[in-house]
Amino acid sequence: MWARELVMSAPGKVILHGEHAVVLGKVALAVALDLRTFLRLRPGAEGRLSVSLPGVGVRRSWDTPELRALRGRIAADCDESKPPSLEQLDALREFAGIAAGASAPESLATLAFLYMCLAISAKYGDVPSVDILVWSELPTGAGLGSSAAYAVCLAAALLMVCGAISCPLQEGESTARWTEEELTLINSWAFRGEQVIHGNPSGVDNAVGTWGGALRYQAGKITPLKRVPTLRILLTNTKVPRSTKVLVAGVKEKILKFPAIMNPVLDSIDAISQECQSVLEAMPANPSPEHYPVLEEFFDINQHHLNVLGVGHPSLDRLCQVTASHSLHSKLTGAGGGGCGITLLPPDTSPPAVEAAKQDLCACGFECWETKIGAPGVTLHSCCSLSARVLHALAQS
Amino acid sequence: MWARELVMSAPGKVILHGEHAVVLGKVALAVALDLRTFLRLRPGAEGRLSVSLPGVGVRRSWDTPELRALRGRIAADCDESKPPSLEQLDALREFAGIAAGASAPESLATLAFLYMCLAISAKYGDVPSVDILVWSELPTGAGLGSSAAYAVCLAAALLMVCGAISCPLQEGESTARWTEEELTLINSWAFRGEQVIHGNPSGVDNAVGTWGGALRYQAGKITPLKRVPTLRILLTNTKVPRSTKVLVAGVKEKILKFPAIMNPVLDSIDAISQECQSVLEAMPANPSPEHYPVLEEFFDINQHHLNVLGVGHPSLDRLCQVTASHSLHSKLTGAGGGGCGITLLPPDTSPPAVEAAKQDLCACGFECWETKIGAPGVTLHSCCSLSARVLHALAQS
Repeated sequence: MWARELVMSAPGKVILHGEHAVVLGKVALAVALDLRTFLRLRPGAEGRLSVSLPGVGVRRSWDTPELRALRGRIAADCDESKPPSLEQLDALREFAGIAAGASAPESLATLAFLYMCLAISAKYGDVPSVDILVWSELPTGAGLGSSAAYAVCLAAALLMVCGAISCPLQEGESTARWTEEELTLINSWAFRGEQVIHGNPSGVDNAVGTWGGALRYQAGKITPLKRVPTLRILLTNTKVPRSTKVLVAGVKEKILKFPAIMNPVLDSIDAISQECQSVLEAMPANPSPEHYPVLEEFFDINQHHLNVLGVGHPSLDRLCQVTASHSLHSKLTGAGGGGCGITLLPPDTSPPAVEAAKQDLCACGFECWETKIGAPGVTLHSCCSLSARVLHALAQS
Repeated sequence: MWARELVMSAPGKVILHGEHAVVLGKVALAVALDLRTFLRLRPGAEGRLSVSLPGVGVRRSWDTPELRALRGRIAADCDESKPPSLEQLDALREFAGIAAGASAPESLATLAFLYMCLAISAKYGDVPSVDILVWSELPTGAGLGSSAAYAVCLAAALLMVCGAISCPLQEGESTARWTEEELTLINSWAFRGEQVIHGNPSGVDNAVGTWGGALRYQAGKITPLKRVPTLRILLTNTKVPRSTKVLVAGVKEKILKFPAIMNPVLDSIDAISQECQSVLEAMPANPSPEHYPVLEEFFDINQHHLNVLGVGHPSLDRLCQVTASHSLHSKLTGAGGGGCGITLLPPDTSPPAVEAAKQDLCACGFECWETKIGAPGVTLHSCCSLSARVLHALAQS
């Protein structure tokens, strides 16, 4: 029986360069965003498994014998190498009282929880009697990998409770991470959770959530970057809603319409991703301030290219103008057409300048976070090492 | 002796697409701008040659025997196939009292006049006794080909007076143009005039001034487009001064710094020029309104690319924003970094919308002309066919 109270966290992600171009086989760089999802794991009442997701309004609890019976019916051949089957998901939906086709975050989060819990416990141990509470700094549905951060935390917690991976946090340590092998297992199961939620995810978000830092993604191949710096940024949500599907289709249409004009733009974006990778990998060994203007130039160029691809938006133009008026450089991140933008904060940016930029962005009706990219991946925390804000949020259940 | 009073005009030019990229071997499209330079040719007092250029404050008059003597010394081997020599120009400067190295428009305009007058008359006839007045709708030094329009008018007038080309205007006609062969001769001599003024011009400006319409320029080769439409535009001068030399050097530096990122941008600009050529050539035969959104899209894309090349300017961003707020599309034209921008006015643009856009642009401190591109080249006019405005301007001397 699980006896410790522990907290684990996983970062969100942003696309630094290569959004849209990646769909057409070009390189993208995804980086871990230091807005994190936290999972508090506590021993539960014997024979009860509870999950509380205050961010999406979920508070469920089941008898473990009931879950064990369900697991016997559906999870006999569960494995991290196999995607969830339609039959398994139908059975889980029926058990949890979720309508077929329900796509609300609370339904998908519950379904992913049940799938991962039963599949992991079927392979590695018994259905655990624990209380799980998840709280996130990440907004949902903003393309920031909140579902992957959730799936990574769940995978780590469930694998640890079932004994499939160790509990690496030693007495007196404030944080700890797992071994490469354990992280690989966490990532595989998190990907299954992402499949429950998204159907056909790329695997980038859960890889960033697991390994943190930065990774290169091209034609289905994910390669973590060796060493990357932690960079300060502003992350701004314009809160303009958009359809990724419509935006991706629009880019495709533009390329079909003007291939000779548009294909070179994709090549240039590809080169930006690759050059940016070189700069990021050079920075830890040579932390010269000269790298920052180059990173800023890449932001500016790619923002123009993304506008050429047709995924800009007046709100993003506004975001770029506002930050430019404080000598800061921004680009959209992700699907575009609204959504989020990131602004690099070079080390010599004065705190009043950052404050002024944030205020001006908020005055536009945007939501703005001062945070970091290149953050660590899934991490185990001792409760006493967490900030008061996080502790307070996790105490709400 | 020349006995008729006639007026000829030549258009200015704007680069439609391919500025900067053309320096690196890519295709550019130059189009004739219907802001014109007018030359009034009148019989002069016997034995006097006068030239009046009110726009640059020149009013000079010489005895023809004196010019004949000068010509005997310097213009023995003058030919349109030979560039002006340093010795010839030194002799002309000395004669006209212009300091070596003087680069003010009035000095260069006087020098070009003397060179063309003596060289043309040496080859084809006698130094003529005529009064020449030149007045232009074009601002000087704004990259709009005002010196070429001047040289084209001068070449046409002097070649006609000396009998090297015909006077094609029949009694009762309002305008007339020369034959292809005659235009070729006008263009060759205009190029010599441009060499006096600019040293090493590309020849694009005088070709546009001579043939009008649109032409393609690549790697030194100038090809007039077959048939092009006349398109309504706004031409806006931000009046922000800039150095073409510095801008060109900046582009080169950026390409050397990030070749893999920048070279595809040049390829995309090249493709825009070529696609735009196809659209322009298709328009006269099929004047469908569907061409305009494509031309607008090319403007938007190229404006982004020019920003990527680093030749944008906040004043040009402003220009684009202001016109976008009236649903009109703009790009910089020429060197960038300030200077001029053009805005396409599709046929369905309402006059109040044009008026509102012009007012907003003027409110930014810009100068704005509603004009056309694809205008006719050098043209001979009967005086009665000219607008009151032009007649008034030409009556000032």
